[in-house]
Amino acid sequence: MALHFDPADLAARRQAACAAVAARGLDALLVFRQESLYYLTGFDTFGYVYFQVLVLRADGRMTLLTRAPDLRQAHRTSVIEDVRVWTDADGATPEAALRDILAEHGLADGRLGVEWHAYGLTAAVGQRLAAALEGVAVLEDASDLVSRLRLVKSPAEIAYTRRAAHLADDALDAALTEIRPGAFEGDILAAMHGAIYRGGGDDPANEFVIGSGPDALLCRYHSGRRHLDAQDQLTLEWAGVYRHYHAAMMRTIPVGRALPGHREMLDVTAEAMAACLDAMRPGNTCGDVFAAHARVIDAAGRRAGRLNACGYAMGTTFAPNWMDWPMLYAGNPVVLESGMVFFLHMILYDDDAGLAMCPGQSALVTDAGGESLSRHPVTLTVAV
Amino acid sequence: MALHFDPADLAARRQAACAAVAARGLDALLVFRQESLYYLTGFDTFGYVYFQVLVLRADGRMTLLTRAPDLRQAHRTSVIEDVRVWTDADGATPEAALRDILAEHGLADGRLGVEWHAYGLTAAVGQRLAAALEGVAVLEDASDLVSRLRLVKSPAEIAYTRRAAHLADDALDAALTEIRPGAFEGDILAAMHGAIYRGGGDDPANEFVIGSGPDALLCRYHSGRRHLDAQDQLTLEWAGVYRHYHAAMMRTIPVGRALPGHREMLDVTAEAMAACLDAMRPGNTCGDVFAAHARVIDAAGRRAGRLNACGYAMGTTFAPNWMDWPMLYAGNPVVLESGMVFFLHMILYDDDAGLAMCPGQSALVTDAGGESLSRHPVTLTVAV
Repeated sequence: MALHFDPADLAARRQAACAAVAARGLDALLVFRQESLYYLTGFDTFGYVYFQVLVLRADGRMTLLTRAPDLRQAHRTSVIEDVRVWTDADGATPEAALRDILAEHGLADGRLGVEWHAYGLTAAVGQRLAAALEGVAVLEDASDLVSRLRLVKSPAEIAYTRRAAHLADDALDAALTEIRPGAFEGDILAAMHGAIYRGGGDDPANEFVIGSGPDALLCRYHSGRRHLDAQDQLTLEWAGVYRHYHAAMMRTIPVGRALPGHREMLDVTAEAMAACLDAMRPGNTCGDVFAAHARVIDAAGRRAGRLNACGYAMGTTFAPNWMDWPMLYAGNPVVLESGMVFFLHMILYDDDAGLAMCPGQSALVTDAGGESLSRHPVTLTVAV
Repeated sequence: MALHFDPADLAARRQAACAAVAARGLDALLVFRQESLYYLTGFDTFGYVYFQVLVLRADGRMTLLTRAPDLRQAHRTSVIEDVRVWTDADGATPEAALRDILAEHGLADGRLGVEWHAYGLTAAVGQRLAAALEGVAVLEDASDLVSRLRLVKSPAEIAYTRRAAHLADDALDAALTEIRPGAFEGDILAAMHGAIYRGGGDDPANEFVIGSGPDALLCRYHSGRRHLDAQDQLTLEWAGVYRHYHAAMMRTIPVGRALPGHREMLDVTAEAMAACLDAMRPGNTCGDVFAAHARVIDAAGRRAGRLNACGYAMGTTFAPNWMDWPMLYAGNPVVLESGMVFFLHMILYDDDAGLAMCPGQSALVTDAGGESLSRHPVTLTVAV
């Protein structure tokens, strides 16, 4: 059985979730987010791409409704004992099965929190769900309830995150053995992912970003790999992942030689990174970290248009998105606490010169400020 | 620029989509599915994890609304010229920005098709969208409109799919060099993914399934890799991916030696696979392919409970799910046509003996029946 936390830890998390459910005046939570399922019960699957829901009553009793391929998966990876199955058929209505389960749990006429913001619960499925429960129960958005609990990591979670950060560092080391003039981007990705799988890690919740030449100024993955030029630049954004805990990193690596612009931009972003780490203290807000970033960028005269976020929380996230809640953007009032983990990315582009410089690393909030989880310093590495 | 189709091909696809939009009496389509965005415009991103929509008018005019990180991405990977940006902020309302764009396009008071079934468009975001467009336009579900067009592949798409199938075969060859008693599952995953990246392929839209021992009976990924026993069984499900076109495969590989049960189950599943390929003819339905599968399983007395689907379409899919529409399940009335591609998985478990045997491959619908896209025959491979 693949259970990665002490069942007592999982029970304590559910207890905290149930307390929050009750505090909001709810009778139960309909858990649709895979992050929440994994956090509360250990349940580890990509079956959430279809209708799948855990009914978690405020008193802790729970029932999972899923498809047949996930019945064994639930037994092998989670502490959930009561698993119900719905079968594919033209016009299959898992929502009706859910209604029956709610009745069985005495939740008809109840007040239910729903994780409406879940990738598996598309708007189309949500509309069918709302229609099926119309008049049956009062539904209230509770998408944030478990996410808020997940934000401060326990010692066991921090240990997994440190292991993830170690794998991210290993991936960078593996990349650096491949990056040189003429190298094929696909070989670089193979080396990076290989280091993580060989280290016992998991798939990232989204693709690694890889772009060279003008595409070094992109911050999304795109299909179509190229060979590096003799004089080039390569932007990489990746995450080490262990037990689904992510620790992201980012780098722009000049190839052949660094241009003066790269060096100047590294100085600015390294200073911004240091300022953000310094701002990552309990009591400060996510907005304060962003402000530290923005001050350095502005002082260097490097602001081009409006600045977007400079990072986001790290945690157990599942495809299609490793960006956990909350983001580090202007004015975000979420208050930092010890044990939170954030990815800080200092993304700087010079459109006129066509240059990028994007160092990023994950860091833990501590009383002494952000503790970088990477062994790689934010310095200029040139691949020759 | 990373555009993987002739702009004329993309224009023809949009023309077909616009004809379907008009035929449904709609004035425009709100495109939220990443599969559709890529298919219609080339736009290649994982930015769909946030609010992102393409307004495609029935006359072909189009405007993309996305976040700042995707502005360059749209210019570099797609033929979309009109790109608008919304910025992260507490209480940001991209829905309001969309309302303005609709007004600009003369679509206020219009009748709009919406891809409500899109992973990025969660139920929570969908509710905000519906509220913002209440009284502004009539909204109608059109989630299937582009998916139906994507189902029959063009020659260029079939070429990419064949390349994907080649990479899937390469991944199996790479796996077979690693699989032996004592092997670490993480090394096997590294070899498989490595073969695909080195071949210029992309990330799969969901994790590869890997499970040994009792977990060979799972058909989902789970975290936590183990070493193979001296006598073991390993189930793998994976996909080669090229230009985001998937070609999935599946195998159970006995390790050390094959048990008699493995051999018997291989015979049954190989026969079921042959029956499915034979049923993959234009004019037959998805349900007919399932029935061919079920007949063989039943004749062998191997039905345990209700049978779920025995496969699904392959195409350009994005995280979190490579299972494209439609599925091969009982009674599914979708009619097969030449140029469709399906993944056929013959999943057989023997719960009492704790054995699995799950061959799977992707195949193209042709007048002569399903053409396997794999060079690996469905035979028993034992890793020693």
